[in-house]
Amino acid sequence: MKTRPETIVIVGGVAGGASAAARARRHSESAHIILIERGPDVSFANCGLPYHIGGEIPDRAELALQTPESLRTLLNLDVRTLTEATAIDRSNKQVRVRSLTDGAESMISYDKLVLSPGASPLRPPLPGIDSPLILTLRNLEDMDRIKAAAAKVERVAIIGAGFIGLEMAEQLHAIGKQVSVIELQPQVLPQLDAEMAKPLAKALSEKGVELILGDGIEGFESLPVGIAAKLKSGKSLGTGLVILSIGVRPENGLAKDAGLALGPRGHVIADKYQLTSDPDIYAVGDVCETEDPILGRRVAIALGGPANRQGRTAADHMFLGDKALPYPGSIGTSIVRVFDHAAGITGWSETRLKMEGVSYQAVTVNGGSHAGYFPGSETITFKLLWSPEDGRVLGAQASGKDGVDKRLDIIATALRARMTIEDLVHLELSYAPPFGSAKDVVNIAGFAACNIRDGLLVPVPDLKSAGAQIIDVRPAAAAAKLPVPGAKNIPLGELRGRLDEIDRSQPVFTICQMGKTSYFAARILANHGFDARSILGGAHHQV
Amino acid sequence: MKTRPETIVIVGGVAGGASAAARARRHSESAHIILIERGPDVSFANCGLPYHIGGEIPDRAELALQTPESLRTLLNLDVRTLTEATAIDRSNKQVRVRSLTDGAESMISYDKLVLSPGASPLRPPLPGIDSPLILTLRNLEDMDRIKAAAAKVERVAIIGAGFIGLEMAEQLHAIGKQVSVIELQPQVLPQLDAEMAKPLAKALSEKGVELILGDGIEGFESLPVGIAAKLKSGKSLGTGLVILSIGVRPENGLAKDAGLALGPRGHVIADKYQLTSDPDIYAVGDVCETEDPILGRRVAIALGGPANRQGRTAADHMFLGDKALPYPGSIGTSIVRVFDHAAGITGWSETRLKMEGVSYQAVTVNGGSHAGYFPGSETITFKLLWSPEDGRVLGAQASGKDGVDKRLDIIATALRARMTIEDLVHLELSYAPPFGSAKDVVNIAGFAACNIRDGLLVPVPDLKSAGAQIIDVRPAAAAAKLPVPGAKNIPLGELRGRLDEIDRSQPVFTICQMGKTSYFAARILANHGFDARSILGGAHHQV
Repeated sequence: MKTRPETIVIVGGVAGGASAAARARRHSESAHIILIERGPDVSFANCGLPYHIGGEIPDRAELALQTPESLRTLLNLDVRTLTEATAIDRSNKQVRVRSLTDGAESMISYDKLVLSPGASPLRPPLPGIDSPLILTLRNLEDMDRIKAAAAKVERVAIIGAGFIGLEMAEQLHAIGKQVSVIELQPQVLPQLDAEMAKPLAKALSEKGVELILGDGIEGFESLPVGIAAKLKSGKSLGTGLVILSIGVRPENGLAKDAGLALGPRGHVIADKYQLTSDPDIYAVGDVCETEDPILGRRVAIALGGPANRQGRTAADHMFLGDKALPYPGSIGTSIVRVFDHAAGITGWSETRLKMEGVSYQAVTVNGGSHAGYFPGSETITFKLLWSPEDGRVLGAQASGKDGVDKRLDIIATALRARMTIEDLVHLELSYAPPFGSAKDVVNIAGFAACNIRDGLLVPVPDLKSAGAQIIDVRPAAAAAKLPVPGAKNIPLGELRGRLDEIDRSQPVFTICQMGKTSYFAARILANHGFDARSILGGAHHQV
Repeated sequence: MKTRPETIVIVGGVAGGASAAARARRHSESAHIILIERGPDVSFANCGLPYHIGGEIPDRAELALQTPESLRTLLNLDVRTLTEATAIDRSNKQVRVRSLTDGAESMISYDKLVLSPGASPLRPPLPGIDSPLILTLRNLEDMDRIKAAAAKVERVAIIGAGFIGLEMAEQLHAIGKQVSVIELQPQVLPQLDAEMAKPLAKALSEKGVELILGDGIEGFESLPVGIAAKLKSGKSLGTGLVILSIGVRPENGLAKDAGLALGPRGHVIADKYQLTSDPDIYAVGDVCETEDPILGRRVAIALGGPANRQGRTAADHMFLGDKALPYPGSIGTSIVRVFDHAAGITGWSETRLKMEGVSYQAVTVNGGSHAGYFPGSETITFKLLWSPEDGRVLGAQASGKDGVDKRLDIIATALRARMTIEDLVHLELSYAPPFGSAKDVVNIAGFAACNIRDGLLVPVPDLKSAGAQIIDVRPAAAAAKLPVPGAKNIPLGELRGRLDEIDRSQPVFTICQMGKTSYFAARILANHGFDARSILGGAHHQV
C-alpha cells in the first residue's frame, strides 16, 4: 500500500487550500503539489478586504500574504491561477481543469485531492439584481471594484448586518459615505442574541449610519443616477451603490457532480480528518461541514481560522493516516469591531439553543476590562449559557470597548475543554491593574451561574420579565440619572432599615447599575423572607 | 449540630478577609461578622499602590474600594480597625484583640475564625537597615510615606526586581526620578525564565533606569544627604531613598502561636476549603499555602485574585460544608507592565521545573498580537512548557507590547482544564483583523510542540546551543540588518538550489527572524537527508 502521496491536487488557493499545500510540503519535498486557483490571486487575507476599502490598510500589497511566485519559490508548489477545476473523475482519480485565459482543457491525475473552493456570496434572483451597482465582497478583485465604485458615490446601502456587513458599514463611513444598513432580522448581527448586539446598533446610529432593521429586500430599480432598493415594508431607498452581504453558499458544484456526500444545506460532509465520502478526497474550509463539538450536531462555519487548521489536518492525514491529529470541529468563535465597540460570540447563542430545543440556563453580568480603580477601564457585558444538567458551558457573548476578544478566547478555550460553570469560578487570570481585575468578568459570570444553580440568585433576564414591584437599589443620584421605569429607589445602604416599605405579599425585583448590587440587595431581602429576584445586567444593560 | 455559624471573626480586612466577610453576609443576614484590621483601612486596592505613587491613579480615594463605614452600611459588618488580634484561644474559641488606639485588650468569641493577615515585606537584619530612608510598600500608609519621601529626592534605589520592584521602577521613573534597580539574580523578574524577562530589562534600560543584576545587598550607610547601598560586588550606590521589594513572609505569628499546622516556609496549611488544621479556623490569602493543581505539590502564591476567591471559598464552607465549591489551588498567573512592554507567566517556569527535577519540553515561538497585515500588530514572544509523558501543558510565559494578558489567560484556562499541546493546536480563538490572527501565537505554539513531539521539528533552544554550521535563511537585507554571529546566509527561496553549499557530515542549524522560516528550512533540509535543527524564536528573540 502506498502511504505517501506523490501527487497532491488542491482546488482553491486561499486559506484552507494554501494551508494544506504548505503543510504537505513540510511532510515531503518530493511530492508534486498542484494548486489550482480560479482567480488571479492566492493566499490573500480575505478578512482584511473591508479595511483596504476603508483605507485602514492603506497598502493593497499587505493583503497578498503570498503570491503565485512566492509559493513557487518558498514551497516549490505548482501554482496554476486563472484555472478552473470543472470536474472530478473519481474512478480514474483525475481532475478536469480549464484555463480561464485560453480555454484550454486538460486532465490532472491525483493521489490525493483537496477541495477548498470556499463559499460565494448569496445573490438571490430578485428583480433588478443584475445591476452593476450591486456588488459583493469575496476577493481582491471584488474589493477593487467596491473601492472604485464607492469613490464615485455619496451613499451606499448595505444589505445584511452580519459580520461583513458591519465591517463594511464602519469602513465606508470612515471614507465619508452615507451608509444605510438593511437587515431582515430586527437586530444587527443576528449571530448574537438581540440584546447583546444592541450596543453595536447604538455605535452605528451614533455615527450617523442609518439602520433599517426587520425589513427585507424585494428588488432593485435603476434610477437616473444610482439605484433604489425596494423593501418589503414598501420603503424605497435610493442609493449610489449596494453591497450585498446576506450570507454565503458553499461552492459545492464540483463535489456534488462527483457524487460526494453533502449535508442538508449543501456542504460537503467531512469527517474528523476532513475526508469526504471518497477516501482520496478531502474538503476543507467554507465548503464543508464538520461536527459541532459542543452538542454533537453538524455545523458549517465559514471562518478563516477553522479553514486554515482544517487544511493542515487534511495534509497531516495524507501522510500520517489515522495518527494525524483530528480536527475537533468548529465552535464558531467570532468577533466584530464597529467603531470603538466590539462584540462577539463563541459557541451557541440563546436564540439557537431555544430554536433547537436544547435546555439551557443564561446569565448576563458586567465587569471592567481591567481594574476599575485604574484609568481606562471599560465595561464589558458578558452573557454565559450553560447546561442545567451538568453545568457545562454551551456558549458566551461579550460586548464592550476593550477586552472583548480576551473574554471570548477564555471561553473558547473553556468550551474546547468542556468546562463547567464551576471551573469558571476559579480561573486564575492575569491580574495587574492595567490588564485585569482580581475578579474578572468571566469569574463573575461563574459566580453568578453557580449562585443561580444554588438558589442564591434568582435571576430575571430583563425588565419586561419583572413584576410590578421593582426596587432600584442604586444611590439616589445614579437612579435619577438613568431612571428605571416604574422602580422605587431604596439605596442598598438604606435597605435593611426600610424593609417595611416593601410589600411581602408579592415578589420584589431588584435592579442597580451593573447587576451586582441588585444581587446583594436580593440576598438581603431573601434572607429576610422576601421572594426577591435580581434583574440581570443592571440599568447599564437594560435601560 | 449547629450548621450555621452565628459569630464569624475575620482577622485582616483586605482582599481575602473582605471577600470572606462579603460572601458570608450573602449567606446570612443574622450572622454577627466581626472584621479585625490592624491598619486604619480595609479592602483597599493593594495592587494599585505603585500607580498612585507614579500619579497614574491621581485620586487616592480610588484605592479605597471600601471604607469601614461603607462595610458597616452595605454589609452590616462589625468593623474594628486599628485593632490587632494578638492570640487565639482555640479551646475556648476566642481571639484576644488589642486596640492600637488605647491599648485596651478584650476577648472575642467566634464560631468560625478566618485568618487573612497577609504577608509582610522582607526586611533582612542588614547593617543600617533601620534607616528611615529604607521603605517598603504594603498598604496605603506605606504608599503615602513613599510618595512623600520620593518627592524630596532625585534618586531612588529599588532592591529586588520582582513584580512590585518593576512596577515601582516604572512609576518612579514616570515622576522624574533617577531609578536604580538592584537584583540578586542575573535577570529582572526572576519568576520568569531569564530569556523571557530580557525584553523588560531592555525596556527599563532604554528609559534610563539603571539595572544592577546579579548583585546582592550587604548593608546600608547613612550619607550626609541620602543613603548608600553597599553591594556584594563592593559597589556602593548613593541614593536618596531605598525601596525594599525582595519578597514577603507570611504573617503567621497568630497561627504559629496557636499551634496551627504550618508548611516548610511558614505558611499556614489550608485544605481545599481553606480550612486549617483546626476545623473552626480558615486561612486565606498570602498567609496560607494550598495545593498546586498542576503537579500536585504545595504552593504559596501571594496574589490578589487567589486571595479573593479563597475568602469566598472559606465563607461558602462555613455555611454549606462539603457542598461548597472547593478551591482548586493556585497556578500563579501574573503579569507586569514596564512602560510599553508587558510580560507574565502562568503555571511553572522552566527554571522551576528544572530545579524540582520535573521532566519537561519547551518551545518558544513568535506571533502577532493581531493579524500582521492590519496596522498596529506587535510581536508576542511565547514560551510553552509541557510534559513529554502525556503532552500536558505545565506552564507558559509571554512577552510583548500588546495582547500578552490574553495569551496568558488562554493558557491559565488550559492549565485549569489540564489541556495538552494537541488541544492548543485547535483552540478556535476570536479572529478579526483588529483582534487576532487566523493562527494565533497560542495555536502556533501548539503546532510547534506537536511538531517537536512528532520529530518534524528538532528544536535548538538558543544560539549558544547551536553547532558550528548555522544557516540564516532570511532575505539578505534582513540578515544584514540584525546579523546572526557565525551564520551563513542562504535565503529560504534559494535553499533548494544551494544544498551543495551545506556540509552533510555535520548538523545544520537554521535561523530566521521569527523562528518560523527556519523551521520551514529545516524541514526542507531534513527531507533532503540533512541532520537539520531549527533555532527557536529567531533573531528577534536570540540576538
